[in-house]
Amino acid sequence: MNKQKIGKNSFQMRSPLTIKAWASVVGKKEALGPLGTTFDVTCEDSYYGQKTWEQAEKKMQQIALQTLAKKANIRQSEFDVVFSGDLLNQCIGSSFPLRNTNIPHIGLYGACSTMAEGLLMASMAVGGGFADNAVALTSSHFASSERQYRFPLGYGGQRTPTAQWTVTGSGSALVCTQGDGPKITGCTIGTVTDYGIKDANNMGAAMAPAAMQTIIAHFDDFSIGPEDYDLIVTGDLGQLGKEILISLLENAGVHIGGKIADCGCLIFDNTAQDVHAGGSGCGCSAVTLCGYLLNKLSIGSMKKILFCGTGALLSPTSVQQGLPIPGICHAVAIAGGK
Amino acid sequence: MNKQKIGKNSFQMRSPLTIKAWASVVGKKEALGPLGTTFDVTCEDSYYGQKTWEQAEKKMQQIALQTLAKKANIRQSEFDVVFSGDLLNQCIGSSFPLRNTNIPHIGLYGACSTMAEGLLMASMAVGGGFADNAVALTSSHFASSERQYRFPLGYGGQRTPTAQWTVTGSGSALVCTQGDGPKITGCTIGTVTDYGIKDANNMGAAMAPAAMQTIIAHFDDFSIGPEDYDLIVTGDLGQLGKEILISLLENAGVHIGGKIADCGCLIFDNTAQDVHAGGSGCGCSAVTLCGYLLNKLSIGSMKKILFCGTGALLSPTSVQQGLPIPGICHAVAIAGGK
Repeated sequence: MNKQKIGKNSFQMRSPLTIKAWASVVGKKEALGPLGTTFDVTCEDSYYGQKTWEQAEKKMQQIALQTLAKKANIRQSEFDVVFSGDLLNQCIGSSFPLRNTNIPHIGLYGACSTMAEGLLMASMAVGGGFADNAVALTSSHFASSERQYRFPLGYGGQRTPTAQWTVTGSGSALVCTQGDGPKITGCTIGTVTDYGIKDANNMGAAMAPAAMQTIIAHFDDFSIGPEDYDLIVTGDLGQLGKEILISLLENAGVHIGGKIADCGCLIFDNTAQDVHAGGSGCGCSAVTLCGYLLNKLSIGSMKKILFCGTGALLSPTSVQQGLPIPGICHAVAIAGGK
Repeated sequence: MNKQKIGKNSFQMRSPLTIKAWASVVGKKEALGPLGTTFDVTCEDSYYGQKTWEQAEKKMQQIALQTLAKKANIRQSEFDVVFSGDLLNQCIGSSFPLRNTNIPHIGLYGACSTMAEGLLMASMAVGGGFADNAVALTSSHFASSERQYRFPLGYGGQRTPTAQWTVTGSGSALVCTQGDGPKITGCTIGTVTDYGIKDANNMGAAMAPAAMQTIIAHFDDFSIGPEDYDLIVTGDLGQLGKEILISLLENAGVHIGGKIADCGCLIFDNTAQDVHAGGSGCGCSAVTLCGYLLNKLSIGSMKKILFCGTGALLSPTSVQQGLPIPGICHAVAIAGGK
């Protein structure tokens, strides 16, 4: 067996895999933010021509997949497998877009870590010779998330200062063995980390310990450090979570300071766009990767990043039952180049 | 790249992988059923010593994982990755058991197909050299499912004749490159199939078309037929869904008749145990596999089976919004032997 496993939590690709194409679909608010010009498609209407917000999310994933096929110049029927998941109960935002497409599908649940989880699984599928073209796909929608996790929008609930704003968007990426594009060199699988945080309006604090664990595991497994990356991008801790992560890493002796960026902080202008601690949702890190970050990597203005998807593994039921919020973080190392 | 992909939807293991150990935890009703003697652990109390049914489900997964480690004679810390998911919103039955265990975790959502999906992913992980020991784990609980998907139990709602009974149980299996035990020889990834069925009390009918598609894709990809298997085991279509599947296959020219068994029909005595169309839930096919089926395969009284996990990808929201119920089916070919 030709081993690709390295260390306790990681694997290193036998030969680097190519992210051949990527696509992003966003809502109006996201398009008006600092990364607005990096997205492929904007849906002007929060229903995206559908009857419900859940179906709007389905439509976004459909468009993200279509746009991906177009940009990769292949037919959707050539996708060997789509790894996808979302925040909606029973992941209906991911199963409905693939109905009767005849595209093999593996359903994931990783909350806001789903884009990283999907890329990691796509890397296993392609790197192990199980697929030639594997897709990672996810989405989130502000209105469907608010209704499901918090309050009906019409209720006009007040948001706490630590609350994050769920991004309306869908991102997709195509992983292949060869071709032009940024390269996946290795991945670190996350562990479920629980520091006892119970405030469902402070998910950055709940997820930061998981991010710390995975980043340290990644450095240990590959015997490297922050200096090996231009940027370590978490998605999405928000402003507060990012600060907590930096402190946790400092306390653990990892001096990472300026190397950390967070998709939740990049996607909105927190003050001007009134999003409090920043963006969140599966779509947040997905569209930041499948727009801004992969664009930068492909033109070589970033050399190597560690993309760390962070997810809060709560449910409204677990919160109502007084349980803490466990977090998880999956990391994917991506090198720039054509 | 050493290819393991075969046909459109499948992969064939370069060398067969071993299911080195398996474990099952069930509730009292399941222990009293026809497969009662094949399970490892019975929880006599529906709360399993916890405060809530959701936490009872967490406990079942914990015990299934502990029992697996014991039966495989390894430490839990030697598990390289656990692929797990369940039916609860945001899969909290799977994330909570792994909190602070430091075991790498990939969260899945495949509804009642989760055991097959997990085995398929564990096969990719081990077969691709990304892990030495990969675990597939899942669970369901009658009371947590009824509350979430249907009515509060205290309401005393009447069940329709086509309704299935969610199994209280958790199953786990350990996939390795070598050692004694039944062998995984190949897998077929499912596609999301929607025939427009809208009756949430008739999930067998909603899932049967997906099972048909995957079984036919499997035969096509490997150029084989029903005669190559002792048994083709779906999990879990129930009595009605099983009959629909047999008709659909007949109409498609695949004469499979006596080869089909369904975990939902095996696990309960439908009449004596008053379960209407049979068992269901992620736990149903998981404990039937990780008890009865793998026991039979390991002693050689079955030579080869195709384990077809079937899932209905609905949510209460999608049903309330009048949408049909898509299904999915993942298949894993398992050969008997030590």
